[in-house]
Amino acid sequence: MLGGIEAGGTKFVLAVGASPYEIAARHVIPTRDPATTLADAADWFERQGRLSALGIASFGPVVLDRASPRWGQITTTPKPGWSGCSLAGFFERRLQVPVGFETDVNAAALAEFGARESGENNSLAYVTVGTGIGGGLVIGGVPVHGVAHPEMGHMIPRRHPGDRVFDGVCPHHGDCLEGLASGPAITARWGMSLSELPSNHAAHEIVAFYLAQLCHTLFAMTAVPIIVLGGGVMQTDGLLGRVRQHASLLDRGYLPGSHCQRIETPKLGEDSGITGALILARNA
Amino acid sequence: MLGGIEAGGTKFVLAVGASPYEIAARHVIPTRDPATTLADAADWFERQGRLSALGIASFGPVVLDRASPRWGQITTTPKPGWSGCSLAGFFERRLQVPVGFETDVNAAALAEFGARESGENNSLAYVTVGTGIGGGLVIGGVPVHGVAHPEMGHMIPRRHPGDRVFDGVCPHHGDCLEGLASGPAITARWGMSLSELPSNHAAHEIVAFYLAQLCHTLFAMTAVPIIVLGGGVMQTDGLLGRVRQHASLLDRGYLPGSHCQRIETPKLGEDSGITGALILARNA
Repeated sequence: MLGGIEAGGTKFVLAVGASPYEIAARHVIPTRDPATTLADAADWFERQGRLSALGIASFGPVVLDRASPRWGQITTTPKPGWSGCSLAGFFERRLQVPVGFETDVNAAALAEFGARESGENNSLAYVTVGTGIGGGLVIGGVPVHGVAHPEMGHMIPRRHPGDRVFDGVCPHHGDCLEGLASGPAITARWGMSLSELPSNHAAHEIVAFYLAQLCHTLFAMTAVPIIVLGGGVMQTDGLLGRVRQHASLLDRGYLPGSHCQRIETPKLGEDSGITGALILARNA
Repeated sequence: MLGGIEAGGTKFVLAVGASPYEIAARHVIPTRDPATTLADAADWFERQGRLSALGIASFGPVVLDRASPRWGQITTTPKPGWSGCSLAGFFERRLQVPVGFETDVNAAALAEFGARESGENNSLAYVTVGTGIGGGLVIGGVPVHGVAHPEMGHMIPRRHPGDRVFDGVCPHHGDCLEGLASGPAITARWGMSLSELPSNHAAHEIVAFYLAQLCHTLFAMTAVPIIVLGGGVMQTDGLLGRVRQHASLLDRGYLPGSHCQRIETPKLGEDSGITGALILARNA
C-alpha cells in the first residue's frame, strides 16, 4: 500500500492506495506547527495499516538533491516554524518506509503527465494559480530540478496597458507574475476574487494576459506540448478560454509545432498533487 | 573520423576530427542555393577521407522528430529555396554515413555542456544573440525538443522605460526579445551596432535589460545552473557584466539556488556550434 502527502501551507492532504490512480482512503488535516501537523499525519497513516512507501509533494522552497544532507527539507519559508524542517526525514524515521520527495507542482506535473501518457508527448508543465503561482515541469518523464526547482510564478511579465498603476503584491519582486495575477494580487487590486467580479470586468482580460505570457514563454523556452493550468483562480468561468486566446495572440502562429501545443485543465481535477505524491511513493 | 556541419544562413562551417573536441581540419563555405551549397560541402568531406558519421547543427526551424518522414528537414524559412530541404537525407545518401541532426543552438548547448561536464550540473542553456536570438537547452544531458524545439528569442519581455517608442523588428511579433535586442534591432534603432555606440549610450543598458529578462525567465522556468551567452552582439565590451547585473536586480536573490546560477561566455568561443555538430556525429 502506497501513502501520499500533499503538504500545503493551509492543509495537508493524506491518502493511501494500491496504485497512484486508485486512492483508497484520504484525510485532510489543517497545517499548524510542524510537530503537531506531522505527528497527526503519521498517526493517520499508522491507522491505515502498513505502508510500502510514502511520497511527499510539498510546498516550497525545498531541497530535492538526494546527495544533499538537507534533502527533504523545506528551506526558507515565511511560515513560522517550518524553515529547515525535514519532512522526508521525519516520515522515514517515524514510519520506517522509503520516502519520495518533490515540490507539489512537480508532483502534480508527474500525475498529469501519467494521466495522458502517450508515445508522442514526453513533456508537460503544470502551473497552479492560487494563493501563489507555481509551476512544475516534467521532461522525458522526469521532473526538472536544475539547481533547485523552477519558480515560474516569479517571471516578469509585460504590464497590461490597463494595469499600469498597481505595484504588485510579491514581497520580493512587486509586479512579477505572482505579484500581478495570483489570488491575493487580484483581491488587493479589485477587492474581491476574479469569480466574484462581473464577467465583463477588465480584470478577466488583464489576468488572462499575464497568464498567457507565462504560457507563451514556457512554449518558447521548452517547446512543451501541454501546459496544465490548475489552482483556485483557474476555476473562474471563462478564464481558461481567455488565456488560450491571449496566448494565441502573443504567438501569432509562429512557434514551430505550436499547432500541437495545448493549454488544458487538470485531468485529475483537484487530485493532481495527491496523485503525484502516490507516484513518488511508487517510485521511491 | 567524425564530420560536422554548422549550417548557418550566411555560411556553412565544415570540420572533421577524431573526437568532437579535437578539430583536425575545417573549411567555411558561403551559403548559396541548397544544391550548390550542399554539393560543395559533400565534396570537401570526400576530400578529407572516409567519415564514420556526420553531425549537422542547423539553422531552423527544423524537424527533429526521428519518427517523422520529414526528419532532418528545414521547414519554413524566408531563405529562398531552403524550405523543405532535407539536409540530413542529402548527406546520408551522398556520403553513406549515419547522420545526427539538431538545431545549431541545441548542438552548441551540448558542446558547452560537455566542455563543463561535472557531477553537479545536469543542465545548461546556450543562447546566441546575433542576427537573431535563439536558445538551446540540454536537460539531463539531452537536448530538449518538445513539440519541435525551443525558440527562446520570441519571448515577450517587459519594455524598458527608456525604449517605449520603437516597434521592434520581428516580422511576427514586433517587439519580442529578438525584435528588440538582436543585431538588426539594435541597428534599426540606433543606426549602428552596439559595439560602435559609446559605452555610456543608453542602448547598452536597454539591451542588457532585455537579455537579463531572458536569463531570469530561463532560471525561473527551468532552474538551469548555467546560461551561456554567445553570438556577435555578446562580443560588445561590458555587455555580459551588464546582463548579469540586470538579471541579479530582477531576481533580488529570490530564486532557490540562485547563488549557484551563472551567466557565462562560451568556453569554446566561436566553436560551440561546430563542436556540437561533431558530438552529434559521435552520437549518431
